[in-house]
Amino acid sequence: MTYCVGLRLNRGLVMMSDTRTNAGVDNISTFGKMHTWCVPGERMITLMCSGNLATTQAVVSLLEERSKAQVDRSPSILEEPSMFQVARLVGQTLREVIAAQSGDGQTAESPFGATLLIGGQIAPGPTRLFLVYPEGNFIEASEDTPFFQIGENKYGRPILLRAHDPEMSFEEAVKLLLVSFDSTLKANLSVGMPFDLQTYENDSFRIGHQARILQDDPYFKEISDGWGEALRTAFGHLPSYSFSEDPSEP
Amino acid sequence: MTYCVGLRLNRGLVMMSDTRTNAGVDNISTFGKMHTWCVPGERMITLMCSGNLATTQAVVSLLEERSKAQVDRSPSILEEPSMFQVARLVGQTLREVIAAQSGDGQTAESPFGATLLIGGQIAPGPTRLFLVYPEGNFIEASEDTPFFQIGENKYGRPILLRAHDPEMSFEEAVKLLLVSFDSTLKANLSVGMPFDLQTYENDSFRIGHQARILQDDPYFKEISDGWGEALRTAFGHLPSYSFSEDPSEP
Repeated sequence: MTYCVGLRLNRGLVMMSDTRTNAGVDNISTFGKMHTWCVPGERMITLMCSGNLATTQAVVSLLEERSKAQVDRSPSILEEPSMFQVARLVGQTLREVIAAQSGDGQTAESPFGATLLIGGQIAPGPTRLFLVYPEGNFIEASEDTPFFQIGENKYGRPILLRAHDPEMSFEEAVKLLLVSFDSTLKANLSVGMPFDLQTYENDSFRIGHQARILQDDPYFKEISDGWGEALRTAFGHLPSYSFSEDPSEP
Repeated sequence: MTYCVGLRLNRGLVMMSDTRTNAGVDNISTFGKMHTWCVPGERMITLMCSGNLATTQAVVSLLEERSKAQVDRSPSILEEPSMFQVARLVGQTLREVIAAQSGDGQTAESPFGATLLIGGQIAPGPTRLFLVYPEGNFIEASEDTPFFQIGENKYGRPILLRAHDPEMSFEEAVKLLLVSFDSTLKANLSVGMPFDLQTYENDSFRIGHQARILQDDPYFKEISDGWGEALRTAFGHLPSYSFSEDPSEP
């Protein structure tokens, strides 16, 4: 499994991914799932991956190769004129890789499947965030749904739904994502540290902040312990159920 | 989908189930998923169901019939000498029903599958809580894992893990379950109100409290609104991430 979140704020994007890959619980490894292409002043694109590692690595390698040597006259992620076109290119590349690996063209829900998040900005367009399906099609984050999760999305979703605010600072947003990642980490062994983190500020066309949050990161420990404590306190402050007031009591 | 939780406390059991069944999002109904057999002073058994509704209804009907008329000389849930034997009987019945429905004996992960929770007490034994798999085998809750969830278990799990305390009162436990159900309800359309609630106090051999929590229940509304607010407040009190302190910042 995997857990990656892309969060759209009014000021830009925050992307976070875990780094665990596994083929069974007895075969785990650490692989970065966040990949960045940047032409300072012109474009900044970040890709996060979940799903079959061979598939996602092949997609990233193809995108990399085509951005460096235009031998096969394919379009390049560094030349596409808009984020929409980048999402199309990434979707096509993903679909191609899955089709090639599955031989007879089997795509959806195949064991070669992968789901991707792409966020970024290409001048003069706005910052955009897309979720690309294994079929190669994609959807865009909006004001109503300002974040996408891929991989193990359920455990960490309630706090994102409750605490997200588009006006948040990057620092607040990182805190929010760490709380969401912490809940996921506690419940699913196939999501693991370290976490990769990146922020992008609108119209900067360069990486904002970038960090790898390690197992022994003191801030993460503070959030993880503090959140457990804060939850218990918050829970304690809610009124208890009262059986006697309940009219349906027998 | 479904969401049911059985929670073992030092003082007894709390069971809660939703009532939504669905065959696609365009075909939803309300069915009780909680069934009780009680012989005052001797035994009290509660069953909660998730999975194929035809399967779970058949299981409950068979258990009911056999507890009333011993025509087929099958054992009865009202005669088994212990909760362990009840779990075996329920597991065998479930396995039988699935085998009959799937014809050729297909069992695990079949569309006829169902998962059950059984809790209760038969004198002179202790209170016990079991989770029964579609294969008919079962596991028991312990001090390390004092609760079982069936159906859509992920969204509501983090708060159970964090806030459960075996010393809790029934009132606190109902509050905890309602918070867990609220998170699930908000994220999965196939879990729906009303909720059925039952408590059982050790050695009482009768239903403790029983209630149906309706859509407009004022306490549930208070918990649902209050928990969102409490989460945001708790979140606000945690320290924000600081980019400048991070040594891996570029």
